Amino acid sequence: MHVLTELGAALAAGSVEVVDLTTPLTPETPILQLPAPFANTVGLSMTPVSAFDDAGPGWAWNDLRLGEHAGTHLDAPSHWITGRHGRSVDRIEPARLVGPAAVVDFTAEAAADADALLELEHLERWEAEHGRFPQNCWVLLRTGWSARGEDPARFLNADEHGLHAPGPSVAAAQWLAAHPHVSGFGVETVGIDAGVAGGFDPPFPAHHHLLGADKYGLTSLRGLDRLPVLGAQLVVAPLPVVGGTGSPARVLALVER
Amino acid sequence: MHVLTELGAALAAGSVEVVDLTTPLTPETPILQLPAPFANTVGLSMTPVSAFDDAGPGWAWNDLRLGEHAGTHLDAPSHWITGRHGRSVDRIEPARLVGPAAVVDFTAEAAADADALLELEHLERWEAEHGRFPQNCWVLLRTGWSARGEDPARFLNADEHGLHAPGPSVAAAQWLAAHPHVSGFGVETVGIDAGVAGGFDPPFPAHHHLLGADKYGLTSLRGLDRLPVLGAQLVVAPLPVVGGTGSPARVLALVER
Ligand SMILES: Nc1ccccc1C(=O)C(=O)O
Ligand SMILES: Nc1ccccc1C(=O)C(=O)O
Repeated sequence: MHVLTELGAALAAGSVEVVDLTTPLTPETPILQLPAPFANTVGLSMTPVSAFDDAGPGWAWNDLRLGEHAGTHLDAPSHWITGRHGRSVDRIEPARLVGPAAVVDFTAEAAADADALLELEHLERWEAEHGRFPQNCWVLLRTGWSARGEDPARFLNADEHGLHAPGPSVAAAQWLAAHPHVSGFGVETVGIDAGVAGGFDPPFPAHHHLLGADKYGLTSLRGLDRLPVLGAQLVVAPLPVVGGTGSPARVLALVER
Repeated sequence: MHVLTELGAALAAGSVEVVDLTTPLTPETPILQLPAPFANTVGLSMTPVSAFDDAGPGWAWNDLRLGEHAGTHLDAPSHWITGRHGRSVDRIEPARLVGPAAVVDFTAEAAADADALLELEHLERWEAEHGRFPQNCWVLLRTGWSARGEDPARFLNADEHGLHAPGPSVAAAQWLAAHPHVSGFGVETVGIDAGVAGGFDPPFPAHHHLLGADKYGLTSLRGLDRLPVLGAQLVVAPLPVVGGTGSPARVLALVER
């Protein structure tokens, strides 16, 4: 039997499940807050076009406003100075949007320290335990952060020094960017960099290194605790906004039950 | 070998391909034009937040404005009066977003007559030839319409009587809505109803019947000529806009090469 026929049968039988890893988009979905003088993006707002009224008696619909980098979203290379001449979100090869998920469990470290940095050693230890990251994979950093929900105070976790959320060190970002099998890097937090990473050298090393190497970022994921360490297939679905530096995205995983 | 492991191997080997069926989103992407007094939705517009400048020296990003029903998009039940108390786009079960594609070739009819209606007989003939529509399937109406490109004059194909584009008859829409295996209905045109369907009884029967039966619409698809009649798996990825009547969507197909 062909693999797609088998997949269809497994989906119908429920032995393969579609798991949604996307944060629902609402006007309350938390948005990155950069300090002045930097400009910030907008969260979702909705304007009714009609609502079963004179403007449309039989139908309701809305217009949307939102940032390319609002909610669960993909960072494309052209978002960053290092990838400036690289791909915009519409030019990402479809083959890069479907691939194995490799989950790095960083929940204990993130629970102990909101500023915990994923170090080179964590990634090397993962490969020592589970084998090499598979070809075309999305490395997903499981931090438990999505359990903080929609409350910006807990999710963005800002104080007078800025945001506090886990993310990769400079060396870990560089290693992921250089790994020939890594297609992208996904996180539960608001951005692929740590909260304090604006002060690193280079600033925002995950953006700097990954987007500069034609690798993609994926943020505000949920439900990573529903994935096995290895074995799920991830489907990453940004809108193909022509010239876009990223896009809100739907992220689904195919998971064996 | 488990089916997801096999799928991973097939994707890596290129024997399963990811085919993008989404129309790239640009400010020129054609939008449905309803006659007065009905309100219309907006197409895409982009506003820069920063562009490697003082507002963000190391990064570029944009804010987006667009209709829920702009470009390639999903129609959710709550879009229509018949589905008013049904699901908004965020409440669609993930299991409904991945399923077999069943392609109905209507290119000859649509080429001969821009107002061609998909009739009950076409659907019955399809099942007589190919077997019953498979469980949880997306029926995709291949009309060749996407070859008309982005030019609204050719794509919307309006004259003083309104739009001219193919779509289902009242009976065909009713039949699709009643079919227990049909999950959704996708088209290459701007909407799931025929151009002249506003004058049918009921008006816009595809919207009326499908959305009233918890089935979903999918529009402005491209590249349906790259799919087999049966055998591809479709991934339909709208943004989970809470309370949304639909959403721009990325649509990918897994296809055996
Ligand atoms: N860290 C950043 C710094 C500047 C601009 C954007 C970001 C993001 O996290 C993003 O891509 O959402
Ligand atoms: N036909 C329509 C009539 C009224 C509102 C919307 C539509 C659509 O086609 C749509 O859903 O894009």
